[in-house]
Amino acid sequence: MTMNRTDLFHLIQKKRSFLCVGLDTDLKKIPSHLMDYDDPVFEFNKQIIDATHDYTIAYKPNLAFYESAGSKGWKSLEKTIEYLKKHEVFTIADAKRGDIGNTSSLYARAFFETLNFDGVTVAPYMGSDSVSPFLGYEGKWVILLALTSNKGAIDFQFITNKNTGKKLFEEVLETSCQWGSADNMMYVVGATKADMLRDIRKLVPDHFLLVPGVGAQGGSLQEVAKHGLNAQCGLIVNSSRGIIYASSDKNFAQAARKNAIEIQREMERILQKNNLI
Amino acid sequence: MTMNRTDLFHLIQKKRSFLCVGLDTDLKKIPSHLMDYDDPVFEFNKQIIDATHDYTIAYKPNLAFYESAGSKGWKSLEKTIEYLKKHEVFTIADAKRGDIGNTSSLYARAFFETLNFDGVTVAPYMGSDSVSPFLGYEGKWVILLALTSNKGAIDFQFITNKNTGKKLFEEVLETSCQWGSADNMMYVVGATKADMLRDIRKLVPDHFLLVPGVGAQGGSLQEVAKHGLNAQCGLIVNSSRGIIYASSDKNFAQAARKNAIEIQREMERILQKNNLI
Repeated sequence: MTMNRTDLFHLIQKKRSFLCVGLDTDLKKIPSHLMDYDDPVFEFNKQIIDATHDYTIAYKPNLAFYESAGSKGWKSLEKTIEYLKKHEVFTIADAKRGDIGNTSSLYARAFFETLNFDGVTVAPYMGSDSVSPFLGYEGKWVILLALTSNKGAIDFQFITNKNTGKKLFEEVLETSCQWGSADNMMYVVGATKADMLRDIRKLVPDHFLLVPGVGAQGGSLQEVAKHGLNAQCGLIVNSSRGIIYASSDKNFAQAARKNAIEIQREMERILQKNNLI
Repeated sequence: MTMNRTDLFHLIQKKRSFLCVGLDTDLKKIPSHLMDYDDPVFEFNKQIIDATHDYTIAYKPNLAFYESAGSKGWKSLEKTIEYLKKHEVFTIADAKRGDIGNTSSLYARAFFETLNFDGVTVAPYMGSDSVSPFLGYEGKWVILLALTSNKGAIDFQFITNKNTGKKLFEEVLETSCQWGSADNMMYVVGATKADMLRDIRKLVPDHFLLVPGVGAQGGSLQEVAKHGLNAQCGLIVNSSRGIIYASSDKNFAQAARKNAIEIQREMERILQKNNLI
Protein backbone atom coordinates (compact mmCIF):
# COMPACT_ATOMS: atom_id res chain seq x y z
CA MET A 1 0.00 0.00 0.00
CA THR A 2 1.30 3.43 -0.92
CA MET A 3 0.50 6.82 0.60
CA ASN A 4 -0.31 9.85 -1.54
CA ARG A 5 -0.33 13.47 -0.41
CA THR A 6 -3.97 13.41 0.67
CA ASP A 7 -3.50 10.14 2.56
CA LEU A 8 -0.60 11.70 4.39
CA PHE A 9 -2.64 14.75 5.38
CA HIS A 10 -5.46 12.50 6.58
CA LEU A 11 -2.99 10.54 8.69
CA ILE A 12 -1.76 13.81 10.21
CA GLN A 13 -5.34 14.80 10.99
CA LYS A 14 -6.14 11.41 12.45
CA LYS A 15 -3.10 11.23 14.72
CA ARG A 16 -3.14 14.98 15.35
CA SER A 17 0.58 14.93 14.82
CA PHE A 18 3.20 15.57 12.16
CA LEU A 19 5.98 13.90 14.10
CA CYS A 20 8.58 11.65 12.51
CA VAL A 21 10.73 9.51 14.78
CA GLY A 22 14.28 9.03 13.53
CA LEU A 23 15.52 5.51 14.14
CA ASP A 24 19.22 6.39 14.49
CA THR A 25 19.79 3.18 16.38
CA ASP A 26 23.38 2.74 17.49
CA LEU A 27 24.29 -0.59 19.06
CA LYS A 28 26.73 1.31 21.26
CA LYS A 29 23.97 3.47 22.74
CA ILE A 30 21.02 1.17 23.38
CA PRO A 31 20.18 -0.15 26.86
CA SER A 32 22.44 -3.00 27.90
CA HIS A 33 19.63 -5.41 28.83
CA LEU A 34 18.74 -5.62 25.10
CA MET A 35 22.06 -7.28 24.35
CA ASP A 36 20.51 -10.60 25.36
CA TYR A 37 18.31 -10.55 22.27
CA ASP A 38 19.38 -12.11 18.95
CA ASP A 39 19.02 -8.75 17.24
CA PRO A 40 19.26 -5.97 19.84
CA VAL A 41 18.89 -3.21 17.23
CA PHE A 42 15.61 -4.60 15.91
CA GLU A 43 14.33 -5.28 19.43
CA PHE A 44 15.09 -1.67 20.38
CA ASN A 45 13.29 -0.37 17.28
CA LYS A 46 10.32 -2.67 17.86
CA GLN A 47 9.83 -1.44 21.40
CA ILE A 48 10.27 2.20 20.30
CA ILE A 49 7.71 1.73 17.51
CA ASP A 50 5.24 -0.01 19.85
CA ALA A 51 5.55 2.80 22.37
CA THR A 52 5.32 5.73 19.95
CA HIS A 53 3.30 4.87 16.84
CA ASP A 54 0.04 6.33 18.19
CA TYR A 55 1.68 9.75 18.22
CA THR A 56 3.88 9.43 15.18
CA ILE A 57 3.03 9.62 11.49
CA ALA A 58 6.42 8.63 10.12
CA TYR A 59 9.58 6.70 10.97
CA LYS A 60 12.94 7.41 9.47
CA PRO A 61 15.67 4.79 9.87
CA ASN A 62 19.04 6.41 9.21
CA LEU A 63 20.94 4.04 6.97
CA ALA A 64 24.40 4.86 8.32
CA PHE A 65 23.52 3.33 11.68
CA TYR A 66 22.55 0.02 10.08
CA GLU A 67 25.41 -0.08 7.58
CA SER A 68 27.92 0.43 10.35
CA ALA A 69 27.17 -3.19 11.31
CA GLY A 70 27.41 -4.46 7.72
CA SER A 71 25.03 -7.11 6.39
CA LYS A 72 23.90 -7.83 9.95
CA GLY A 73 22.80 -4.21 10.24
CA TRP A 74 20.92 -4.46 6.95
CA LYS A 75 19.16 -7.49 8.36
CA SER A 76 18.03 -5.38 11.35
CA LEU A 77 16.84 -2.75 8.88
CA GLU A 78 14.85 -5.30 6.89
CA LYS A 79 13.12 -6.52 10.04
CA THR A 80 12.44 -2.93 11.08
CA ILE A 81 10.79 -1.92 7.79
CA GLU A 82 8.77 -5.15 7.81
CA TYR A 83 7.55 -4.32 11.30
CA LEU A 84 6.80 -0.70 10.36
CA LYS A 85 4.64 -1.93 7.46
CA LYS A 86 2.25 -3.44 10.00
CA HIS A 87 1.45 0.05 11.25
CA GLU A 88 -0.27 3.05 9.71
CA VAL A 89 2.85 5.13 9.21
CA PHE A 90 4.86 6.72 6.43
CA THR A 91 8.33 5.20 6.12
CA ILE A 92 11.46 7.09 5.11
CA ALA A 93 14.87 5.62 4.31
CA ASP A 94 17.27 8.38 5.32
CA ALA A 95 19.94 7.32 2.88
CA LYS A 96 20.96 10.51 1.03
CA ARG A 97 21.74 8.54 -2.11
CA GLY A 98 22.39 9.87 -5.59
CA ASP A 99 24.50 8.68 -8.52
CA ILE A 100 24.45 8.50 -12.32
CA GLY A 101 21.15 7.35 -13.84
CA ASN A 102 21.70 3.61 -14.09
CA THR A 103 23.14 3.48 -10.55
CA SER A 104 20.34 5.58 -9.06
CA SER A 105 17.92 3.08 -10.65
CA LEU A 106 19.52 0.38 -8.53
CA TYR A 107 19.27 2.52 -5.40
CA ALA A 108 15.60 3.05 -6.22
CA ARG A 109 15.19 -0.71 -6.57
CA ALA A 110 16.89 -1.17 -3.18
CA PHE A 111 14.69 1.25 -1.25
CA PHE A 112 11.36 1.09 -3.11
CA GLU A 113 11.26 -2.58 -4.18
CA THR A 114 13.56 -4.67 -2.01
CA LEU A 115 12.89 -2.75 1.22
CA ASN A 116 9.56 -1.16 0.22
CA PHE A 117 10.04 2.23 1.90
CA ASP A 118 7.56 5.01 1.04
CA GLY A 119 10.25 7.64 0.64
CA VAL A 120 14.00 8.02 0.41
CA THR A 121 16.24 11.03 0.99
CA VAL A 122 18.32 11.91 -2.08
CA ALA A 123 21.31 14.26 -2.55
CA PRO A 124 21.06 16.77 -5.44
CA TYR A 125 24.70 17.37 -6.43
CA MET A 126 24.63 15.13 -9.52
CA GLY A 127 21.47 16.68 -10.96
CA SER A 128 18.44 15.47 -12.88
CA ASP A 129 19.39 11.96 -14.00
CA SER A 130 20.59 11.12 -10.47
CA VAL A 131 17.13 11.91 -9.06
CA SER A 132 14.73 10.95 -11.86
CA PRO A 133 15.01 7.16 -11.47
CA PHE A 134 13.52 7.48 -7.98
CA LEU A 135 10.54 9.35 -9.44
CA GLY A 136 9.49 6.48 -11.65
CA TYR A 137 7.67 4.67 -8.85
CA GLU A 138 3.93 5.27 -8.50
CA GLY A 139 3.09 6.26 -4.94
CA LYS A 140 6.71 6.59 -3.80
CA TRP A 141 8.50 9.76 -2.71
CA VAL A 142 11.84 11.46 -3.30
CA ILE A 143 12.86 13.63 -0.36
CA LEU A 144 15.53 15.88 -1.82
CA LEU A 145 18.16 17.69 0.26
CA ALA A 146 17.68 21.43 -0.11
CA LEU A 147 18.84 23.29 2.99
CA THR A 148 20.40 21.04 5.60
CA SER A 149 20.66 21.70 9.34
CA ASN A 150 24.37 21.09 9.86
CA LYS A 151 27.06 23.73 10.07
CA GLY A 152 28.66 22.57 6.79
CA ALA A 153 25.47 23.71 5.03
CA ILE A 154 27.07 27.13 4.62
CA ASP A 155 30.00 25.79 2.61
CA PHE A 156 28.12 25.35 -0.66
CA GLN A 157 24.34 25.65 -0.18
CA PHE A 158 24.51 29.44 0.20
CA ILE A 159 26.66 30.13 -2.85
CA THR A 160 24.87 32.78 -4.93
CA ASN A 161 24.42 32.07 -8.64
CA LYS A 162 25.95 34.91 -10.63
CA ASN A 163 23.34 34.59 -13.37
CA THR A 164 20.16 34.34 -11.32
CA GLY A 165 21.06 35.91 -7.97
CA LYS A 166 19.70 32.79 -6.29
CA LYS A 167 21.43 30.66 -3.68
CA LEU A 168 22.35 27.07 -4.48
CA PHE A 169 19.63 25.60 -2.26
CA GLU A 170 17.08 27.83 -4.02
CA GLU A 171 18.37 26.62 -7.38
CA VAL A 172 17.94 23.04 -6.15
CA LEU A 173 14.34 23.79 -5.14
CA GLU A 174 13.45 25.55 -8.40
CA THR A 175 15.23 23.22 -10.79
CA SER A 176 13.99 20.04 -9.15
CA CYS A 177 10.40 21.28 -9.36
CA GLN A 178 10.71 20.51 -13.06
CA TRP A 179 11.60 16.88 -12.33
CA GLY A 180 8.73 15.99 -10.05
CA SER A 181 5.72 17.52 -8.33
CA ALA A 182 4.34 18.02 -4.83
CA ASP A 183 2.84 14.56 -5.30
CA ASN A 184 6.13 12.68 -5.53
CA MET A 185 8.74 15.02 -4.04
CA MET A 186 9.42 16.52 -0.63
CA TYR A 187 12.39 18.56 0.55
CA VAL A 188 14.72 18.37 3.52
CA VAL A 189 14.87 21.78 5.18
CA GLY A 190 16.84 22.20 8.40
CA ALA A 191 14.97 23.53 11.43
CA THR A 192 17.95 25.63 12.49
CA LYS A 193 16.96 28.00 9.70
CA ALA A 194 13.29 28.37 10.67
CA ASP A 195 13.01 31.96 9.51
CA MET A 196 14.23 30.94 6.06
CA LEU A 197 11.24 28.63 5.75
CA ARG A 198 9.18 31.66 4.83
CA ASP A 199 11.15 32.21 1.64
CA ILE A 200 11.31 28.50 0.89
CA ARG A 201 7.51 28.30 1.16
CA LYS A 202 7.25 30.89 -1.60
CA LEU A 203 9.27 28.63 -3.90
CA VAL A 204 7.51 25.38 -2.96
CA PRO A 205 4.12 26.29 -1.53
CA ASP A 206 2.56 22.84 -1.88
CA HIS A 207 5.40 20.42 -1.15
CA PHE A 208 5.83 18.58 2.10
CA LEU A 209 9.02 19.55 3.93
CA LEU A 210 10.93 17.11 6.09
CA VAL A 211 12.40 19.13 8.93
CA PRO A 212 15.16 17.55 11.00
CA GLY A 213 16.75 19.06 14.07
CA VAL A 214 13.71 19.79 16.22
CA GLY A 215 13.94 18.37 19.71
CA ALA A 216 11.48 18.48 22.55
CA GLN A 217 11.87 22.28 22.49
CA GLY A 218 8.49 23.82 21.75
CA GLY A 219 10.21 27.02 20.72
CA SER A 220 11.72 25.93 17.46
CA LEU A 221 8.68 23.80 16.63
CA GLN A 222 6.52 26.93 16.92
CA GLU A 223 8.89 28.77 14.60
CA VAL A 224 8.92 25.95 12.07
CA ALA A 225 5.12 25.79 12.10
CA LYS A 226 4.75 29.54 11.81
CA HIS A 227 6.75 29.72 8.59
CA GLY A 228 6.33 26.23 7.18
CA LEU A 229 2.69 25.12 7.48
CA ASN A 230 0.53 24.98 4.37
CA ALA A 231 -3.08 23.98 3.67
CA GLN A 232 -2.29 20.27 4.03
CA CYS A 233 0.08 20.78 6.95
CA GLY A 234 3.02 20.29 4.59
CA LEU A 235 5.43 19.51 7.41
CA ILE A 236 6.96 16.34 8.74
CA VAL A 237 9.09 17.24 11.74
CA ASN A 238 11.71 14.76 12.82
CA SER A 239 13.15 14.03 16.23
CA SER A 240 15.70 11.29 16.65
CA ARG A 241 17.89 11.29 19.74
CA GLY A 242 15.45 13.37 21.80
CA ILE A 243 12.97 10.52 21.60
CA ILE A 244 14.80 7.24 21.14
CA TYR A 245 17.49 8.03 23.69
CA ALA A 246 15.17 9.73 26.20
CA SER A 247 16.37 7.14 28.70
CA SER A 248 19.10 4.51 28.62
CA ASP A 249 17.39 2.37 31.28
CA LYS A 250 14.93 -0.49 31.04
CA ASN A 251 12.17 2.10 30.80
CA PHE A 252 13.57 3.56 27.54
CA ALA A 253 10.39 2.87 25.56
CA GLN A 254 8.09 4.56 28.09
CA ALA A 255 10.48 7.51 28.22
CA ALA A 256 10.39 7.70 24.42
CA ARG A 257 6.60 7.56 24.51
CA LYS A 258 6.47 10.37 27.06
CA ASN A 259 8.65 12.60 24.88
CA ALA A 260 6.70 11.71 21.74
CA ILE A 261 3.42 12.58 23.48
CA GLU A 262 4.83 15.90 24.60
CA ILE A 263 5.72 16.85 21.01
CA GLN A 264 2.44 15.44 19.66
CA ARG A 265 0.43 17.62 22.11
CA GLU A 266 2.33 20.68 20.95
CA MET A 267 1.66 19.70 17.34
CA GLU A 268 -2.03 19.13 18.08
CA ARG A 269 -2.30 22.67 19.45
CA ILE A 270 -0.55 24.02 16.37
CA LEU A 271 -2.85 22.10 14.02
CA GLN A 272 -5.92 23.32 15.91
CA LYS A 273 -4.77 26.91 15.96
CA ASN A 274 -4.29 26.77 12.21
CA ASN A 275 -7.66 25.10 11.56
CA LEU A 276 -6.04 22.01 10.10
CA ILE A 277 -7.96 19.67 12.43
CA MET B 1 47.42 -2.83 5.66
CA THR B 2 46.79 0.65 4.32
CA MET B 3 48.06 2.31 1.16
CA ASN B 4 49.54 5.82 1.14
CA ARG B 5 50.13 7.99 -1.91
CA THR B 6 53.62 6.67 -2.52
CA ASP B 7 52.47 3.05 -2.13
CA LEU B 8 49.79 3.72 -4.71
CA PHE B 9 52.28 5.18 -7.18
CA HIS B 10 54.58 2.21 -6.66
CA LEU B 11 51.70 -0.14 -7.34
CA ILE B 12 50.97 1.76 -10.57
CA GLN B 13 54.62 1.45 -11.56
CA LYS B 14 54.73 -2.23 -10.71
CA LYS B 15 51.57 -3.18 -12.61
CA ARG B 16 52.24 -0.59 -15.33
CA SER B 17 48.59 0.34 -15.08
CA PHE B 18 46.29 2.87 -13.47
CA LEU B 19 43.15 0.91 -14.22
CA CYS B 20 40.28 0.53 -11.75
CA VAL B 21 37.66 -2.10 -12.44
CA GLY B 22 34.17 -1.11 -11.35
CA LEU B 23 32.30 -4.04 -9.84
CA ASP B 24 28.80 -2.90 -10.87
CA THR B 25 27.57 -6.44 -10.54
CA ASP B 26 23.89 -6.81 -11.39
CA LEU B 27 22.33 -10.21 -10.73
CA LYS B 28 20.14 -9.57 -13.78
CA LYS B 29 23.14 -9.23 -16.10
CA ILE B 30 25.60 -11.92 -15.07
CA PRO B 31 25.98 -15.17 -17.06
CA SER B 32 23.20 -17.62 -16.34
CA HIS B 33 25.47 -20.58 -15.51
CA LEU B 34 26.55 -18.72 -12.35
CA MET B 35 23.03 -18.99 -10.93
CA ASP B 36 23.89 -22.48 -9.70
CA TYR B 37 26.26 -21.01 -7.11
CA ASP B 38 25.12 -20.09 -3.59
CA ASP B 39 26.16 -16.51 -4.17
CA PRO B 40 26.28 -15.81 -7.92
CA VAL B 41 27.27 -12.16 -7.43
CA PHE B 42 30.32 -13.06 -5.35
CA GLU B 43 31.25 -15.89 -7.71
CA PHE B 44 31.09 -13.46 -10.65
CA ASN B 45 33.27 -10.93 -8.79
CA LYS B 46 35.76 -13.61 -7.74
CA GLN B 47 36.25 -14.81 -11.30
CA ILE B 48 36.53 -11.24 -12.59
CA ILE B 49 39.13 -10.42 -9.91
CA ASP B 50 41.09 -13.60 -10.62
CA ALA B 51 41.15 -12.79 -14.32
CA THR B 52 42.02 -9.10 -14.09
CA HIS B 53 44.04 -8.32 -10.95
CA ASP B 54 47.42 -8.53 -12.71
CA TYR B 55 46.39 -5.56 -14.85
CA THR B 56 44.36 -3.63 -12.33
CA ILE B 57 45.45 -1.46 -9.43
CA ALA B 58 42.02 -0.84 -7.93
CA TYR B 59 38.54 -2.30 -7.67
CA LYS B 60 35.44 -0.26 -7.07
CA PRO B 61 32.27 -2.08 -6.02
CA ASN B 62 29.29 0.19 -6.63
CA LEU B 63 27.13 -0.02 -3.52
CA ALA B 64 23.81 0.43 -5.30
CA PHE B 65 24.19 -2.91 -7.05
CA TYR B 66 24.66 -4.75 -3.76
CA GLU B 67 21.98 -2.85 -1.86
CA SER B 68 19.45 -3.65 -4.54
CA ALA B 69 19.49 -7.19 -3.12
CA GLY B 70 19.23 -6.02 0.51
CA SER B 71 21.18 -7.76 3.27
CA LYS B 72 21.96 -10.62 0.90
CA GLY B 73 23.65 -8.12 -1.41
CA TRP B 74 25.66 -6.73 1.50
CA LYS B 75 26.78 -10.26 2.25
CA SER B 76 28.08 -10.55 -1.33
CA LEU B 77 29.85 -7.23 -0.84
CA GLU B 78 31.48 -8.42 2.39
CA LYS B 79 32.77 -11.55 0.68
CA THR B 80 34.02 -9.45 -2.24
CA ILE B 81 36.02 -7.02 -0.11
CA GLU B 82 37.42 -9.92 1.91
CA TYR B 83 38.56 -11.55 -1.33
CA LEU B 84 39.99 -8.28 -2.65
CA LYS B 85 42.05 -7.91 0.54
CA LYS B 86 44.02 -11.02 -0.48
CA HIS B 87 45.33 -9.15 -3.50
CA GLU B 88 47.62 -6.19 -3.93
CA VAL B 89 44.95 -3.69 -4.93
CA PHE B 90 43.42 -0.43 -3.74
CA THR B 91 39.76 -0.85 -2.81
CA ILE B 92 37.09 1.80 -3.29
CA ALA B 93 33.53 1.70 -1.98
CA ASP B 94 31.60 3.71 -4.55
CA ALA B 95 28.93 4.79 -2.11
CA LYS B 96 28.60 8.57 -2.57
CA ARG B 97 27.65 9.01 1.08
CA GLY B 98 27.46 12.23 3.08
CA ASP B 99 25.34 13.38 6.01
CA ILE B 100 25.59 15.48 9.18
CA GLY B 101 28.70 14.89 11.27
CA ASN B 102 27.53 12.17 13.64
CA THR B 103 25.89 10.26 10.79
CA SER B 104 28.93 10.52 8.51
CA SER B 105 30.95 9.07 11.40
CA LEU B 106 28.79 5.97 11.20
CA TYR B 107 29.23 5.76 7.42
CA ALA B 108 32.99 6.02 7.98
CA ARG B 109 32.73 3.20 10.50
CA ALA B 110 30.79 1.13 7.96
CA PHE B 111 33.26 1.50 5.10
CA PHE B 112 36.60 1.88 6.88
CA GLU B 113 36.14 -0.38 9.91
CA THR B 114 33.38 -2.91 9.26
CA LEU B 115 34.19 -3.41 5.57
CA ASN B 116 37.80 -2.18 5.62
CA PHE B 117 37.84 -0.40 2.24
CA ASP B 118 40.80 1.86 1.45
CA GLY B 119 38.64 4.65 0.08
CA VAL B 120 35.03 5.74 -0.19
CA THR B 121 33.32 8.18 -2.55
CA VAL B 122 31.62 11.05 -0.72
CA ALA B 123 29.11 13.70 -1.90
CA PRO B 124 29.98 17.33 -1.05
CA TYR B 125 26.56 19.03 -0.81
CA MET B 126 26.41 19.07 3.00
CA GLY B 127 29.87 20.59 3.43
CA SER B 128 32.75 20.23 5.86
CA ASP B 129 31.27 18.30 8.78
CA SER B 130 29.73 15.76 6.37
CA VAL B 131 33.18 14.95 4.97
CA SER B 132 35.55 15.42 7.92
CA PRO B 133 34.58 12.24 9.84
CA PHE B 134 35.89 10.17 6.92
CA LEU B 135 39.24 11.99 7.16
CA GLY B 136 39.89 10.83 10.71
CA TYR B 137 41.19 7.43 9.62
CA GLU B 138 44.96 7.07 9.19
CA GLY B 139 45.75 5.60 5.79
CA LYS B 140 42.18 5.82 4.47
CA TRP B 141 40.92 7.98 1.62
CA VAL B 142 37.98 10.26 0.90
CA ILE B 143 37.18 10.43 -2.81
CA LEU B 144 35.04 13.53 -3.12
CA LEU B 145 32.65 14.19 -6.01
CA ALA B 146 33.79 17.28 -7.88
CA LEU B 147 32.81 17.12 -11.55
CA THR B 148 30.74 14.07 -12.42
CA SER B 149 30.39 12.44 -15.82
CA ASN B 150 26.59 12.30 -16.11
CA LYS B 151 24.40 14.74 -17.98
CA GLY B 152 22.82 16.03 -14.76
CA ALA B 153 26.25 17.42 -13.83
CA ILE B 154 25.31 20.63 -15.63
CA ASP B 155 22.31 21.28 -13.37
CA PHE B 156 24.28 22.53 -10.37
CA GLN B 157 28.01 21.81 -10.72
CA PHE B 158 28.49 24.60 -13.27
CA ILE B 159 26.69 27.32 -11.33
CA THR B 160 29.03 30.32 -11.11
CA ASN B 161 29.55 31.88 -7.69
CA LYS B 162 28.66 35.55 -7.86
CA ASN B 163 31.33 36.47 -5.30
CA THR B 164 34.28 34.51 -6.61
CA GLY B 165 33.50 33.91 -10.29
CA LYS B 166 34.19 30.22 -9.73
CA LYS B 167 31.98 27.31 -10.67
CA LEU B 168 30.46 25.12 -7.97
CA PHE B 169 32.76 22.16 -8.73
CA GLU B 170 35.74 24.51 -8.47
CA GLU B 171 34.45 25.76 -5.12
CA VAL B 172 34.18 22.15 -3.99
CA LEU B 173 37.79 21.52 -5.03
CA GLU B 174 39.16 24.66 -3.40
CA THR B 175 37.14 24.54 -0.19
CA SER B 176 37.71 20.84 0.43
CA CYS B 177 41.48 21.34 0.07
CA GLN B 178 41.24 22.97 3.50
CA TRP B 179 39.70 19.83 5.00
CA GLY B 180 42.22 17.27 3.86
CA SER B 181 45.34 16.94 1.73
CA ALA B 182 46.59 15.03 -1.29
CA ASP B 183 47.48 12.31 1.20
CA ASN B 184 43.92 11.54 2.30
CA MET B 185 41.68 12.96 -0.43
CA MET B 186 41.08 12.26 -4.09
CA TYR B 187 38.47 13.70 -6.43
CA VAL B 188 35.96 12.21 -8.83
CA VAL B 189 36.33 13.95 -12.19
CA GLY B 190 34.30 12.71 -15.15
CA ALA B 191 36.18 11.67 -18.26
CA THR B 192 33.58 13.21 -20.54
CA LYS B 193 35.14 16.54 -19.62
CA ALA B 194 38.74 15.61 -20.39
CA ASP B 195 39.71 19.09 -21.56
CA MET B 196 38.53 20.52 -18.24
CA LEU B 197 41.08 18.36 -16.46
CA ARG B 198 43.69 20.94 -17.39
CA ASP B 199 42.02 23.60 -15.27
CA ILE B 200 41.26 21.14 -12.49
CA ARG B 201 44.93 20.13 -12.37
CA LYS B 202 45.81 23.77 -11.66
CA LEU B 203 43.56 23.70 -8.59
CA VAL B 204 44.66 20.28 -7.33
CA PRO B 205 48.10 19.56 -8.83
CA ASP B 206 49.02 16.77 -6.41
CA HIS B 207 45.75 14.93 -5.74
CA PHE B 208 44.83 11.65 -7.30
CA LEU B 209 41.77 11.90 -9.53
CA LEU B 210 39.33 9.03 -9.95
CA VAL B 211 38.07 9.21 -13.52
CA PRO B 212 34.97 7.21 -14.41
CA GLY B 213 33.50 6.88 -17.86
CA VAL B 214 36.49 5.66 -19.85
CA GLY B 215 35.83 2.50 -21.82
CA ALA B 216 38.10 0.53 -24.11
CA GLN B 217 38.37 3.65 -26.27
CA GLY B 218 42.02 4.66 -26.42
CA GLY B 219 40.97 8.12 -27.53
CA SER B 220 39.45 9.40 -24.35
CA LEU B 221 42.11 7.67 -22.25
CA GLN B 222 44.77 9.61 -24.19
CA GLU B 223 42.88 12.84 -23.55
CA VAL B 224 42.52 12.11 -19.85
CA ALA B 225 46.21 11.29 -19.56
CA LYS B 226 47.26 14.37 -21.52
CA HIS B 227 45.51 16.74 -19.15
CA GLY B 228 45.40 14.76 -15.92
CA LEU B 229 48.75 13.06 -15.29
CA ASN B 230 51.04 14.41 -12.59
CA ALA B 231 54.44 13.41 -11.24
CA GLN B 232 52.99 10.41 -9.37
CA CYS B 233 50.58 9.51 -12.16
CA GLY B 234 47.73 11.03 -10.13
CA LEU B 235 45.08 9.18 -12.10
CA ILE B 236 42.93 6.16 -11.39
CA VAL B 237 40.82 5.49 -14.46
CA ASN B 238 37.75 3.34 -14.03
CA SER B 239 36.02 1.03 -16.42
CA SER B 240 32.98 -0.96 -15.30
CA ARG B 241 30.67 -2.36 -17.92
CA GLY B 242 33.32 -2.36 -20.66
CA ILE B 243 35.26 -4.94 -18.68
CA ILE B 244 32.91 -6.93 -16.48
CA TYR B 245 30.25 -7.33 -19.16
CA ALA B 246 32.69 -7.88 -22.03
CA SER B 247 30.89 -11.17 -22.60
CA SER B 248 27.76 -12.72 -21.16
CA ASP B 249 28.90 -16.27 -21.93
CA LYS B 250 30.83 -18.81 -19.90
CA ASN B 251 34.02 -17.14 -21.09
CA PHE B 252 33.10 -13.83 -19.42
CA ALA B 253 36.22 -13.77 -17.23
CA GLN B 254 38.62 -14.33 -20.13
CA ALA B 255 36.79 -11.66 -22.10
CA ALA B 256 37.12 -9.28 -19.14
CA ARG B 257 40.83 -10.12 -18.91
CA LYS B 258 41.30 -9.43 -22.60
CA ASN B 259 39.68 -5.99 -22.30
CA ALA B 260 41.62 -5.20 -19.12
CA ILE B 261 44.90 -6.11 -20.84
CA GLU B 262 44.03 -3.90 -23.79
CA ILE B 263 43.54 -0.91 -21.50
CA GLN B 264 46.60 -1.79 -19.40
CA ARG B 265 48.80 -1.85 -22.54
CA GLU B 266 47.54 1.57 -23.52
CA MET B 267 48.23 2.80 -19.99
CA GLU B 268 51.71 1.28 -20.04
CA ARG B 269 52.54 3.20 -23.23
CA ILE B 270 51.22 6.39 -21.63
CA LEU B 271 53.29 5.85 -18.46
CA GLN B 272 56.40 5.17 -20.52
CA LYS B 273 55.91 8.17 -22.76
CA ASN B 274 55.64 10.35 -19.67
CA ASN B 275 58.69 8.82 -17.98
CA LEU B 276 56.64 7.53 -15.07
CA ILE B 277 57.99 3.99 -15.47
